[in-house]
Amino acid sequence: MYHFESDYLEGCCPQILDALRETNLEQTLGYGEDPHCSKAADMIRYVFGCPDAEVHFLVGGTQTNATVIASLLRPHQGVLCAESGHINIHETGAVEHGGHKVLALPSRDGKISAAQVRAALEAHQSDFSREHMVQPGMVYISFPTELGTLYTKEELEDLHQVCSEWEIPLFIDGARLGYGLEASGCRLLPKDIARLSDVFYVGGTKQGALFGEAVVFTRPRLAEDFRYCIKQNGGMLAKGRLLGIQFEVLMNGGLYFQLARRANRLADRIRAAFLRKGIPFLVENTTNQIFPILEIGAIDRLTGSFGVERWQPVDETRTAVRFCTGWATTESAVAALEAYIEANL
Amino acid sequence: MYHFESDYLEGCCPQILDALRETNLEQTLGYGEDPHCSKAADMIRYVFGCPDAEVHFLVGGTQTNATVIASLLRPHQGVLCAESGHINIHETGAVEHGGHKVLALPSRDGKISAAQVRAALEAHQSDFSREHMVQPGMVYISFPTELGTLYTKEELEDLHQVCSEWEIPLFIDGARLGYGLEASGCRLLPKDIARLSDVFYVGGTKQGALFGEAVVFTRPRLAEDFRYCIKQNGGMLAKGRLLGIQFEVLMNGGLYFQLARRANRLADRIRAAFLRKGIPFLVENTTNQIFPILEIGAIDRLTGSFGVERWQPVDETRTAVRFCTGWATTESAVAALEAYIEANL
Amino acid sequence: MYHFESDYLEGCCPQILDALRETNLEQTLGYGEDPHCSKAADMIRYVFGCPDAEVHFLVGGTQTNATVIASLLRPHQGVLCAESGHINIHETGAVEHGGHKVLALPSRDGKISAAQVRAALEAHQSDFSREHMVQPGMVYISFPTELGTLYTKEELEDLHQVCSEWEIPLFIDGARLGYGLEASGCRLLPKDIARLSDVFYVGGTKQGALFGEAVVFTRPRLAEDFRYCIKQNGGMLAKGRLLGIQFEVLMNGGLYFQLARRANRLADRIRAAFLRKGIPFLVENTTNQIFPILEIGAIDRLTGSFGVERWQPVDETRTAVRFCTGWATTESAVAALEAYIEANL
Amino acid sequence: MYHFESDYLEGCCPQILDALRETNLEQTLGYGEDPHCSKAADMIRYVFGCPDAEVHFLVGGTQTNATVIASLLRPHQGVLCAESGHINIHETGAVEHGGHKVLALPSRDGKISAAQVRAALEAHQSDFSREHMVQPGMVYISFPTELGTLYTKEELEDLHQVCSEWEIPLFIDGARLGYGLEASGCRLLPKDIARLSDVFYVGGTKQGALFGEAVVFTRPRLAEDFRYCIKQNGGMLAKGRLLGIQFEVLMNGGLYFQLARRANRLADRIRAAFLRKGIPFLVENTTNQIFPILEIGAIDRLTGSFGVERWQPVDETRTAVRFCTGWATTESAVAALEAYIEANL
Repeated sequence: MYHFESDYLEGCCPQILDALRETNLEQTLGYGEDPHCSKAADMIRYVFGCPDAEVHFLVGGTQTNATVIASLLRPHQGVLCAESGHINIHETGAVEHGGHKVLALPSRDGKISAAQVRAALEAHQSDFSREHMVQPGMVYISFPTELGTLYTKEELEDLHQVCSEWEIPLFIDGARLGYGLEASGCRLLPKDIARLSDVFYVGGTKQGALFGEAVVFTRPRLAEDFRYCIKQNGGMLAKGRLLGIQFEVLMNGGLYFQLARRANRLADRIRAAFLRKGIPFLVENTTNQIFPILEIGAIDRLTGSFGVERWQPVDETRTAVRFCTGWATTESAVAALEAYIEANL
Repeated sequence: MYHFESDYLEGCCPQILDALRETNLEQTLGYGEDPHCSKAADMIRYVFGCPDAEVHFLVGGTQTNATVIASLLRPHQGVLCAESGHINIHETGAVEHGGHKVLALPSRDGKISAAQVRAALEAHQSDFSREHMVQPGMVYISFPTELGTLYTKEELEDLHQVCSEWEIPLFIDGARLGYGLEASGCRLLPKDIARLSDVFYVGGTKQGALFGEAVVFTRPRLAEDFRYCIKQNGGMLAKGRLLGIQFEVLMNGGLYFQLARRANRLADRIRAAFLRKGIPFLVENTTNQIFPILEIGAIDRLTGSFGVERWQPVDETRTAVRFCTGWATTESAVAALEAYIEANL
Repeated sequence: MYHFESDYLEGCCPQILDALRETNLEQTLGYGEDPHCSKAADMIRYVFGCPDAEVHFLVGGTQTNATVIASLLRPHQGVLCAESGHINIHETGAVEHGGHKVLALPSRDGKISAAQVRAALEAHQSDFSREHMVQPGMVYISFPTELGTLYTKEELEDLHQVCSEWEIPLFIDGARLGYGLEASGCRLLPKDIARLSDVFYVGGTKQGALFGEAVVFTRPRLAEDFRYCIKQNGGMLAKGRLLGIQFEVLMNGGLYFQLARRANRLADRIRAAFLRKGIPFLVENTTNQIFPILEIGAIDRLTGSFGVERWQPVDETRTAVRFCTGWATTESAVAALEAYIEANL
Repeated sequence: MYHFESDYLEGCCPQILDALRETNLEQTLGYGEDPHCSKAADMIRYVFGCPDAEVHFLVGGTQTNATVIASLLRPHQGVLCAESGHINIHETGAVEHGGHKVLALPSRDGKISAAQVRAALEAHQSDFSREHMVQPGMVYISFPTELGTLYTKEELEDLHQVCSEWEIPLFIDGARLGYGLEASGCRLLPKDIARLSDVFYVGGTKQGALFGEAVVFTRPRLAEDFRYCIKQNGGMLAKGRLLGIQFEVLMNGGLYFQLARRANRLADRIRAAFLRKGIPFLVENTTNQIFPILEIGAIDRLTGSFGVERWQPVDETRTAVRFCTGWATTESAVAALEAYIEANL
C-alpha cells in the first residue's frame, strides 16, 4: 500500500545521505558554528536575495515558531494569526507555554487579510481598556497555509504594508515554502518572500531533508541574541552541522525547488484526476496537498489501497481527506492512484 | 590537527549511516509512532532491565531536561541539583523559561550527596516561611557529571532512598551514560540506573548517534501525557523514526556500550600519559573526559597541534583543560598525543 | 453627575471602614495567618455550607483567576471558557503568561453549556493528533457572566456533571457572586455554588469591600500547596488580615447578600424604566448590570447627565451601554435616572 | 505581649484611615486612572526630584519585583542580585515563574558591589559559550537590604556607573526605602535614589500604609506599556485610588519620612540597649531592623515577654533574632524592652 498521508513519511533525498556520509568524519565545532552552516546561510541569503539577512538553523517547525515568537514579543504581547494557524491548533500550546496569547482571526481558507490585521490593530488601539487586553505584537502567517492555499503577491504586499505601518514584525512560516513558490500560478519569487517579511523560515523537514528549518531574519536587528533564544528553547543542535550540510545540499543547484516542483506536478495530476470525476474539494489550491471531499464509504474502500489522512467531516455522509505528495512520491504510485480514481470514484 | 575538544565533533558511527540508508524509503507514521521507535524502546527496556518502563525519544539534552522537569513539577516547585549542573549553568535558563527555579547545591566534584538533599528538604520543611520559598520538587543529577565523575553504587542507593522517602522523583541526566557505565571501576550496571532512578535518559548525541536522547520513565505513572509535553517543548521530531533507527543500532549487540568502552580506554591512555609526567588533574575521574591542569604557555603550544577546550583557570599561571575521547577518536591521534605529552610537557 | 459605569467606583461599605479602624492597632501575623482570616474562612464555610472547604483570600480577580488556574493545570493543559470570558479578553493574557491556553468556546450570552464542554472534551479525546493540541484540563465559568446573565440550577448541575465524569475541575469566577445569588428568579442558594463547583470565589471588590476575593476549594485536595502559588503569583498580601477583616464584616449577618440584593432592586428599577419606553437590551438579565441598546445621539446626550460605559456597537446607529448599580448606588441617583429615561428616551 | 517580629503587624497610620473615610463616597475611574493616583505621582516626582519620571502603583512587593523584572528583561536574560536578595529567596520563585533566572552573587551583608557586577558582566561577555548561559540583563538591589544594611552614596554611584556602561537597568527595591534614607549616617537624599537608579520603588506596606508600593521609572522609556504588565501580573487594583490616596497622605508634609525617622530612633534605642550589654550583632546597621545574637535559652525567655523573629542560627548555642520597629511601635514598648535587656541579658 502506498501512503499519501503526509510529506514526511520517508527519510531524505539521497543527496543528503551522500553528504552526511562524505562529511561524517570531519571534526567541526558544534552548535551551528561550523563551515557548513556558514556556507548554507550564504546560499540561502543568495537564493532569497537578502544579502544582509541573519540566518539560523533549527530542528523542527514547532520549535522554530515558538522560538521566533518568544524572541520577538514582550510579555504583554500576542501574535495575530489565522484561527486555523499551526501555532493556534497543532503545537500543544507552545506559544502559550512561552507566555504569549495567540490572537486568532477568523479564516475560511487558512489566510488572513491585511484588512483583518489592520482592523485588529485599530480595534486594540482605540479600546479604552486596551491595557486589560493582550497587545497584538506581531503577525504570523504560513505560506502555503495549513490548507495548501497561497497568498498572492498583492495580498502579501498589503500584509507587509500594514505591519510596516504599525511597526510590528511579519513572520512567515515556510514549513512548505518550496511547494508554495513552485505552485503553478504563483507569481512570488524567493526574493519576494524575503522582501515582504521581517522573518521567515525555509522548511526542510517536509521538503527533502531529514529535518531542519532555516530561519531568515531579513531585518537583522530583530535577530539580536537569537542564538541564546534557540538554546533556551531547546533548539540548538549539538552537531549543528547536520543542519548546514542538509541546506547546502538543498540549496545547491536549486534542488530544494526542483523537488518541490516535481511534487507539485504530481499533486496536479492527482487533483486533475479528481476533477475529471467531478469530485469537489474542501479548498482550491495548487500546492502539494489535495483535499477532495469523498463519501465515507468511498474513503473506507480507498484506504484499502492508499494511505490518506481523514482531514475533516464536511457533512453527515462526506469527509474531506488529504493527499500529500513530496520529494519521495513515486510516479508509479501516482499513476496507480489516478487509475483508482478513474475506476472507482 | 586533531581535535579533542568534545565528544560531538563528528557525525555518527557508520552503522547508523547504513541504517538510515537502508530505511530511507520506508513510509512510516511520524512523531515517534513508528515500528523503529517501538522496537528501540523494547531494546532499551530489555538492556536496562525495566520491562514496564515508558520510553520516549527526544532530539537533544537541553530539550530533554527542560521537558522532563516541566512535566514533573508543579509551578511552585524547583529542582535540586549541583551548582555545576548542566541545567544550572549551560542551558540558557531553559528550566526557568519553563517557570521553575533551579535549587543549586554546593559541589566540588559535580556530585551532590543524599545528605545534602535530605538537609535541603528538611530545611525547607521546617522553615516557618517555607511558603515564601520554592519547594524542592525533584532531584537532578548527571551520570557521569559535568566533570566526568561518577556516583558510586552506594551514593546512588542513598540518593534514591532519600528521594523515595520524600516522594520526589530522582532524574538522572545520562547524556554520557555509556561512558559512565563502562568506566573502569564502575560497579553499576544498566539495570541499576533503572532501579535507582524514577526517570533517566540514555544519551545518544555524545555516544555515536547523530543526535537523540532516550528518556526512560521507570515509574510509568510519571510519564502521563508526556508526549503532549514533548510536543509543547518543541521536541517531537516529525520523522521520529530517525531516533528509533539510531537507538536500534546502538542497542543492537551492545554497540552503545562497546563504543563507550573503547573511548574510555583511549581516555585512560591519555590520562596515564599526563600522570607519568606528574601533571595534576582538576578532578579524578575514569570516564571519557580528562581535565589536566597545565601552564598557560604549555596550553598555547599544545593547541598548535591538538584541539582542546580551556575549561577553567586554576590560578594565575595554570588552567585546567578538557580532552574528550569518543566513538570516533582514532588510535593514531591518541598515540600522537601520548608522544606529544611525553616529549613536551 | 452621577456615575453608573461600574460597581467599583467608590470605596467600601462603612462597616468595613469601621472595622479597619477598630482593628488598626492589633498586632497580628502577616500573610493571612491571622485570626481574622481564620474567622472569615469559617464564616464563608458556614454560609456556603461547605464545612470541609479550604478558603484563601486574594486581592483581586485577575490575580485570583491566574493563580487558581496555574495551580490546577499541568503545562500541556488549557482552560475551557466562553469566548467572552474575563480570562479570555480582559486580563492581558495573565493565563497565557502562566503558560496555559484559554480554550474559548462560542457564546452568545456569556454562558457555555454542558453540551459544549462535553463536545470539546470528546473531540479532543477522539482526535488522533490530540497530543499536538492543548488538552482541556478544567472549565472556567463566571456567575454572573460578563453580561450579567446567570446559569440556571439545571445548567450548573449539567456542567458539574460533565466535569465530574471527565474528572476535570469546574471553577466559578464569582467576582459578582452576590448579585447573582440575589437576582430575582435565581433558584440557586450559596450552598449550591459550593456543591456544584470544585473551586469558586466570592468576590469582594465589586460587592462592598475595598478589595479582596475569597477562593473556596470545595475539594480540598485541589488546594494542596495553594499558598505557595498565591505567593508566587504576587497575591499574598503582607497585611493579610485586611482581607479577613473585610470578609468578616461582609459575612456578618448576611451583609454581603443584603448589599447585593439592594443593588439588584435598584437595577431592576432602571431596567423597568427602559422597558417602559420599549428600549431593547443587548441581553436579558436580572443582576446589577443593565445593557440597553441606545441611539448614539441619545447616548451622547445621556452622558451629559449620567456616567455610563459604552459596551459595544450593535449596528451603525446604535450601541449597547452598561449601567451598573452597587452597594453605594443612591436611591436619589436611580430616581433621577428613571426620570431622565422617562422624559428623554 | 508586645510584638517586634516585623514592621507590618498593624494596620496603617491614622491619617490614611481618615483619608479613606473622607474619600469613601467619591466616584472615580478604576485601575489607577483617578485624580488621587495622579496627584500622588506628582508628589513622588517632586519629593524624589525626578520631574520626568513615570510613576505606577502596585499592591505588594513580590508583585512589584516580578512585574518590573518581567517587563524589563528579554526571555534569555536574568537578573543579578545578592544571594540573600528577596527575589532569590522569599518570593516563591516569582521571577522564575515569569521565565527568568535570578543570577545570585555572593554577599555577606546583603549588598553586592559594582566590582562584582562588573566581573559577572565581563565573565559572561568573555565566555565563548555565553549563548549557553543566561545573559545578565539587569541588576536588582534593595535599599536597605534584607539585613537592614545600606549602600553608601559612593557604592551606589559605582553600581549606577557600571550599569550605565553596560546599558542594563539598575532596579532598587525600596520596600523599606524610608527607613534607609532616614537612617543615621545615611548621606543619600531621595533625589539620589532617583538619580542613581533606572527604576526603584517606594515601599508603603512596611512604612505606614495598609499596602502599596510606588514604582518610579526615572528613565520613562523603560516604562513603555508597563500598565499592560501590571495587569498581566495581577497587580492592577480595581479601586486603584486606594493606592493614590495612601501615597498622597504619606508624601504630604514628609509624613513618610517622619514615620521612618521615628521608627529608626526607636530602633537605635534598642540597638544601644544591646550594645550596653556587649551583645554582638549579626550585622552592623542603622535602620529599623536589629539583629542581635543571643543564647537560645535567652531567646526562649525573652519570647515570653516580647515577640521576636528567630532569624538564623549562628552556632550551636546562639541564634540571631530580628527586632523590627515601625510607624506603630510605641515608646512604652521600647522602654519596656530596654528595661528587659538591661535586667535580663
